[in-house]
Amino acid sequence: MPLSPEQHQEIEAQRGQSATTLRAVSPGMEAHLYKAHQVLDHGFVRVVDYMGDDSAIVQAARVSYGRGTKSVSNDEGLIRYLMRHWHSTPFEMCEVKLHVKLPVFVARQWIRHRTANVNEYSGRYSILDREFYIPSAEHLAAQSVVNNQGRGEALSGEEAARVLAWLKDDAGRAYDHYEAMISQEGQQGLARELARMNLPANIYTQWYWKVDLHNLLHFLRLRADAHAQYEIRVYADALCEIVKDWVPFAYKAFEDYRLGAVSMSTQAVDVIKRRLAGEAVTQETSGMSKGEWREFVAIWG
Amino acid sequence: MPLSPEQHQEIEAQRGQSATTLRAVSPGMEAHLYKAHQVLDHGFVRVVDYMGDDSAIVQAARVSYGRGTKSVSNDEGLIRYLMRHWHSTPFEMCEVKLHVKLPVFVARQWIRHRTANVNEYSGRYSILDREFYIPSAEHLAAQSVVNNQGRGEALSGEEAARVLAWLKDDAGRAYDHYEAMISQEGQQGLARELARMNLPANIYTQWYWKVDLHNLLHFLRLRADAHAQYEIRVYADALCEIVKDWVPFAYKAFEDYRLGAVSMSTQAVDVIKRRLAGEAVTQETSGMSKGEWREFVAIWG
Amino acid sequence: MPLSPEQHQEIEAQRGQSATTLRAVSPGMEAHLYKAHQVLDHGFVRVVDYMGDDSAIVQAARVSYGRGTKSVSNDEGLIRYLMRHWHSTPFEMCEVKLHVKLPVFVARQWIRHRTANVNEYSGRYSILDREFYIPSAEHLAAQSVVNNQGRGEALSGEEAARVLAWLKDDAGRAYDHYEAMISQEGQQGLARELARMNLPANIYTQWYWKVDLHNLLHFLRLRADAHAQYEIRVYADALCEIVKDWVPFAYKAFEDYRLGAVSMSTQAVDVIKRRLAGEAVTQETSGMSKGEWREFVAIWG
Amino acid sequence: MPLSPEQHQEIEAQRGQSATTLRAVSPGMEAHLYKAHQVLDHGFVRVVDYMGDDSAIVQAARVSYGRGTKSVSNDEGLIRYLMRHWHSTPFEMCEVKLHVKLPVFVARQWIRHRTANVNEYSGRYSILDREFYIPSAEHLAAQSVVNNQGRGEALSGEEAARVLAWLKDDAGRAYDHYEAMISQEGQQGLARELARMNLPANIYTQWYWKVDLHNLLHFLRLRADAHAQYEIRVYADALCEIVKDWVPFAYKAFEDYRLGAVSMSTQAVDVIKRRLAGEAVTQETSGMSKGEWREFVAIWG
Repeated sequence: MPLSPEQHQEIEAQRGQSATTLRAVSPGMEAHLYKAHQVLDHGFVRVVDYMGDDSAIVQAARVSYGRGTKSVSNDEGLIRYLMRHWHSTPFEMCEVKLHVKLPVFVARQWIRHRTANVNEYSGRYSILDREFYIPSAEHLAAQSVVNNQGRGEALSGEEAARVLAWLKDDAGRAYDHYEAMISQEGQQGLARELARMNLPANIYTQWYWKVDLHNLLHFLRLRADAHAQYEIRVYADALCEIVKDWVPFAYKAFEDYRLGAVSMSTQAVDVIKRRLAGEAVTQETSGMSKGEWREFVAIWG
Repeated sequence: MPLSPEQHQEIEAQRGQSATTLRAVSPGMEAHLYKAHQVLDHGFVRVVDYMGDDSAIVQAARVSYGRGTKSVSNDEGLIRYLMRHWHSTPFEMCEVKLHVKLPVFVARQWIRHRTANVNEYSGRYSILDREFYIPSAEHLAAQSVVNNQGRGEALSGEEAARVLAWLKDDAGRAYDHYEAMISQEGQQGLARELARMNLPANIYTQWYWKVDLHNLLHFLRLRADAHAQYEIRVYADALCEIVKDWVPFAYKAFEDYRLGAVSMSTQAVDVIKRRLAGEAVTQETSGMSKGEWREFVAIWG
Repeated sequence: MPLSPEQHQEIEAQRGQSATTLRAVSPGMEAHLYKAHQVLDHGFVRVVDYMGDDSAIVQAARVSYGRGTKSVSNDEGLIRYLMRHWHSTPFEMCEVKLHVKLPVFVARQWIRHRTANVNEYSGRYSILDREFYIPSAEHLAAQSVVNNQGRGEALSGEEAARVLAWLKDDAGRAYDHYEAMISQEGQQGLARELARMNLPANIYTQWYWKVDLHNLLHFLRLRADAHAQYEIRVYADALCEIVKDWVPFAYKAFEDYRLGAVSMSTQAVDVIKRRLAGEAVTQETSGMSKGEWREFVAIWG
Repeated sequence: MPLSPEQHQEIEAQRGQSATTLRAVSPGMEAHLYKAHQVLDHGFVRVVDYMGDDSAIVQAARVSYGRGTKSVSNDEGLIRYLMRHWHSTPFEMCEVKLHVKLPVFVARQWIRHRTANVNEYSGRYSILDREFYIPSAEHLAAQSVVNNQGRGEALSGEEAARVLAWLKDDAGRAYDHYEAMISQEGQQGLARELARMNLPANIYTQWYWKVDLHNLLHFLRLRADAHAQYEIRVYADALCEIVKDWVPFAYKAFEDYRLGAVSMSTQAVDVIKRRLAGEAVTQETSGMSKGEWREFVAIWG
């Protein structure tokens, strides 16, 4: 359980305090505000604030004085047009602020997305909690035999047990020593900014992360993808559900034109056209490398 | 008057529609929402949306579960500490979305601030309005005789009249021809994306501009400065008044540690220390160039 | 002719001075250095500096100590893989610095690409040159009758002559008055920062523009596209030729996976699969809107 | 010693291969190219490529056709003027690409500077080396008793020995298990992307980091500061030496107007003025908080 009773109370207190605003309000998003959606064994994502809704996208695209909306169906059509034609600036007009708790090795992947604002819990200033990500049995996967940066089947039997024991023992011992090193009872106590170096990459950290909708969708496109590491993909999946409730038109357009879309190279377009004309194209006659052909066949057969 | 009756009506309609939200609300900012603050002869700035308030800065700095606030005086102290020590990320956690109407030559300066989101009214798609910035008599200034990129006294007499007549006539004629070129009555009609090239840089454009508080304060520091061109400074001044109402603690810290602050070089610190010790320092003995000494004396005498 | 004899001389002087370096050198790019490639009637692009080559992309992707290269064919394969799978960071490791002379209305589109460094010629500080873009007859196009932000056929006959006369006369008169306003002979002289507002958007400006290869390719993808305005597309086309000589592998991959690529929505993939299976799909049964179907048919028939 | 003989050889091979270029060359920087400057016990920084020199800053500020230089003393004066007046864009016209080897906890601080390009060695794809940062005795510091995020005296005696033993043992054991988990001898072998989570934050990683001079100086201002954590400050110090050789004028201006400069608040300016006028000001009459007064007195007595 990622939250203490005090934290639950703070969250409930915030959900209990509503106020009046003249700003655009997304009812779907209000239902998410402050709630912690559990991810992995001790992590979560929760929406702390947001700006804008589907009609804010329309309003910005039109640079309008009022709502910008002509009709709901017009709005959806315009949003789909903007997404299809890579007009990204109107989507930048929505913003969301999240509180995320996540293992350090996931945080290190996440932070590569630079166009966002971040405040991380400081291990220089504060003492980190004793919480480590330990994969469940089904996600304790072997190295892939076909992909150098992927994973295969779950480990089984003794090997799985041995790995789990090591992960738990090493994390526990590292944390015990971390605590013992910073303790100021009967000794000077090591600086926190140094002691944290003993902690492994599966320890949990947390941060406030604020991002505009365009950059969030770009993040989701890469991290909700089947090639993303499972441990970050589950965060992306949780965020997809939230975005769907926040800006339903934009999310649907994103599903159709990005998540479920296929980018075809000059060569791939040519092969499809030849196939449609009845030709049987092989890798040799396709103009593609073996790797590209394999990826092509995975989609088109 | 920058707004048409229809636009006034749209704004009033938005101010009439309030809703309930669980988000942080800044009462000072709610009072500004949607209202057009006039700037120059036909321009304005108006707040279209915002995210966060003073306590959101504190909450992010503490990566807290709830409000993050311990007491109001603690909050102000922390905000001042963050500003003084250049901890900029918590200020990035507030965001504002503005609708701005401004002359094109001002827009060209403004857009150099790249860390912001922009949607501009499109001259490819739409027809621009016949509105031009014409300086008032007191702001029709001569080239500075001491500063290559500044201005001096206001022009007077016949010269002022001649300049004003040219500005008005040329703008009017350019717009007449713009209209005549795009007209489709009895002719093909020039493409709007081409016809706009005939319009001068004092024509008004408008955009949605969204920025986080840290980057907004950086913009204000440079553009509310005495060295900024008057025509952009008045926009910065109007924004200062808005930010003051939105996040009063952050704005006060900004005034004390940025707007009213002085950055002293190694040499300047040395001169002040020698002066405090009773020494009479001259430019020759100061280690400063003539230009730097002039700037130093302007502040310290 | 965009360059004065003095400017030609300065460029030749720079091309005459070679030096020894240990850095990666791109022979194709050295041949371009400093040369002005003419674009439109008075504009140009010229490479002022660059960093990296194809193997720098490989080197960064491998985080290697030396060149990173295993073999030339390996390099090309890796670069194509990176492009195909949207691994953008290795392409960010190359950088180019350009000097561009361009009409103001083109500069205003260009600057929307924010991830770049810019130094523009200052109209506050300096006096602008009397040079205006006047479209050639074939590019003096009418408004498109099908696309609100496009252009159609060239204007003809009297209408073309009238438009050209207006463009030339208005620009000339605006510049005459600009000169007369800032003149300090027998009068105070209007501040340059004000006088420039009288100049139309087809006046030429110039800037130094520095960008990494990833962001440059993104710019080219949008601006070398058939939907881009002709006057910016010709700059993008000129840059494509330069990039092709600088990083030939990366450019070829860009052509295949971006410029010549087609992004297919969930619905479009489905329609193609049904067609390949022999079904005759119509807009009604496609799940696409009329607009999307039109765009689909334009590619696939 | 951070480099293997093979790595030394690769570096020497690159330093042996010079070529001719028409680009600006910085002799001071050529002397650094590819060489590894040792930092901490196993880390380094080395320059892999660079673009521009002092005169490139001048050239961009003047948007010139040739070198932009009038005289060397003019160049220095202009660079100092630009730095003093916060004209940052000309400094963005220089760029440097570094290869850095650094402990993960340092990398996590470093990456907060977002305006840079990064390619990090991938723990998903590759096997990390058995190299950990172990502080030397003098840097094994206790938690500060006055500053929540600083450090005090070095630990002594048994406590120091105990801490060092834990750091070494825990890192060694974690790495042994990492190796055992990914081994494919007689077992499936855990995925590398999972196994790395067992490794502590003092393990070394490496990356290519590319940044423009303006953003590099901003990084150095914050990280070469006395308040920065020692383990990142030594990297900043090493970079300062490199930048000094690369762009000597810009670096000197940076020292005078940034590194050695003091930012004074409205209140601090007022206190200094009163002191210069002979008044004895106390904290109570200063208008400053206790914390700010303490910082003020530390500089001004």
